[in-house]
Amino acid sequence: MAITSTHPILAACRREQTPYTPVWLMRQAGRYMEEYRKLRAEHEFLDLCKSSDLAAEITVTPVERLKVDAAILFADILLLLEPMGVGLEYTKGDGPVIQNTVSSRTHVEQLIEFDPAEALPFVFETVRKVCTALNGKVPLIGFAGAPFTLASYLVEGGSSRNYLKTKRLIYSNPGAWRGLMERLSSLTAKYLNAQIAAGAEAVQLFDSWAGCLSPEDYERFVLPHTRATITGLTPGVPVIHFSTGTGGFLKSLRAAGGDVIGVDWRVNLDTAWDDLGHDVGIQGNLDPAALLASPKDIRRRVAEILRRAGGKAGHIFNLGHGVLPETPVENVIAMVEAVHELSSR
Amino acid sequence: MAITSTHPILAACRREQTPYTPVWLMRQAGRYMEEYRKLRAEHEFLDLCKSSDLAAEITVTPVERLKVDAAILFADILLLLEPMGVGLEYTKGDGPVIQNTVSSRTHVEQLIEFDPAEALPFVFETVRKVCTALNGKVPLIGFAGAPFTLASYLVEGGSSRNYLKTKRLIYSNPGAWRGLMERLSSLTAKYLNAQIAAGAEAVQLFDSWAGCLSPEDYERFVLPHTRATITGLTPGVPVIHFSTGTGGFLKSLRAAGGDVIGVDWRVNLDTAWDDLGHDVGIQGNLDPAALLASPKDIRRRVAEILRRAGGKAGHIFNLGHGVLPETPVENVIAMVEAVHELSSR
Repeated sequence: MAITSTHPILAACRREQTPYTPVWLMRQAGRYMEEYRKLRAEHEFLDLCKSSDLAAEITVTPVERLKVDAAILFADILLLLEPMGVGLEYTKGDGPVIQNTVSSRTHVEQLIEFDPAEALPFVFETVRKVCTALNGKVPLIGFAGAPFTLASYLVEGGSSRNYLKTKRLIYSNPGAWRGLMERLSSLTAKYLNAQIAAGAEAVQLFDSWAGCLSPEDYERFVLPHTRATITGLTPGVPVIHFSTGTGGFLKSLRAAGGDVIGVDWRVNLDTAWDDLGHDVGIQGNLDPAALLASPKDIRRRVAEILRRAGGKAGHIFNLGHGVLPETPVENVIAMVEAVHELSSR
Repeated sequence: MAITSTHPILAACRREQTPYTPVWLMRQAGRYMEEYRKLRAEHEFLDLCKSSDLAAEITVTPVERLKVDAAILFADILLLLEPMGVGLEYTKGDGPVIQNTVSSRTHVEQLIEFDPAEALPFVFETVRKVCTALNGKVPLIGFAGAPFTLASYLVEGGSSRNYLKTKRLIYSNPGAWRGLMERLSSLTAKYLNAQIAAGAEAVQLFDSWAGCLSPEDYERFVLPHTRATITGLTPGVPVIHFSTGTGGFLKSLRAAGGDVIGVDWRVNLDTAWDDLGHDVGIQGNLDPAALLASPKDIRRRVAEILRRAGGKAGHIFNLGHGVLPETPVENVIAMVEAVHELSSR
């Protein structure tokens, strides 16, 4: 721990001044990168996740290629749902599909109970192998889906446009919803703690779909469970709490917890940080689509975000959501270079 | 005009006190309603729009059924694109598809020029027939897509998840983008003015997809064109400017114009109104999915929104987006009743 604990990204999580603004990208290990596409052509997605050698390789490659300040574990937020016995499948083109969706208390009670540390050994093997490979150069960020986002997959059976089934369950059966969220919040905390025990030095909680909710529904039906997850985590390890489309209730996300709040590009970083309060860090927030612009334009946009961050301690540069598959890798490299150069203090 | 100009919905647009909070719903004439489904089973969607008798019937029916305070023209924002020669089709299930998408300045120049007042006579016939049928009981709200939302359909060829093609055009060819937006903003103003000339007493501009943008991109590439549309409208007719997912840059939407800003459910109405400033009206903002809850829960949610509006002049009650097809009509009726009862002054 001692080797990397002064690393800019961990220092920024503690809101300490850093020599430059640290940067990583959500989905920096992904389809936009040739090295990944080659592996993906030979293996099914789940097989890549479950082979700790390959998953570790995929995790480490972008660190070397992009010169980012952290590795992010190659995995999928839905891995945690598979041992529940819900029939998770990754279909070609359509994304993940869950066969046995949840729509009642009985369904919630039928979900298989398990210990993530035992049921997902390949994840922690990957973490250990990544840490060995990184050798203290940059920290590894572990991650998990937040209870709401996980629950929405279980209820909808996949991704959704309106999250109608999820909202219908919340409205019509708040007891079943609470049971489901309690199960998921406890499971998520255990899963992240096992990643930390294996070597992850920070963790990010993805509540990617929380932005479908009204502030009131978020506060009533989600916030207490996200808070339970975060308070259940190993003390001292920084937590990044990320969501999208939640610019209207950032204060509530902050109230749920996290040392750093990850925001998307639909807000200005300065007004978002003012809204959150400066006693918490902020991560973001370039539009992933902006990486399709020219390197010159990308540099201008990076400068604008850094200007809004005002050189204050506690900013981690990132996109506002994951790297898009259509992104030219050289533009990602240009972005990382621009962040490092323009923020150098 | 004199008969309805004191109607609560028009008074609210002028931020005058009203005896109760006026209410209407986006897509109040739509698939959730049996009367509509019956007509739709017998006619293609475009045929319904183009038959002024049927379109007028569809427009008027929910006013009687729901006791709302305004009629909203039954039409589609893409009707305005058809005479451009882009090959608009409504396919079953997939929604609208545009065959000849726009991705260059040449494509923009190839768009057929036309006068909406001449090319879409059925729309204005519908407006006249609706006004005759309503006989001054409630006003008719006309509407159009805002330039950005129309442009995104022309560029993407349909609805989109990430609006990548649109953003790519903006970044790579800002001249073509400007040409397209100038064309659309002028066309939209003419189209709305013709609706007003035919009898619409207020208009709503739908920038439904503006929320995919960063505040900076909205301000640079969209705001000036929306402003051009709004300043080109017949003076004295209230303009409602609606969008979704834009809680992070409501001030910019307000700067683009409109007497009333329509907000979605991802913001609290009070903080949104504070952000907009109280020298503009506000419309919203119940989550359309909340109409799947019980009438009791709907009433509680209505009360909460009214509480946040604080009885201040200038609030029009509405959903945060259109009525969902799955919505029970009795819940919509319960919502309208609750708004009228609970806001009665």
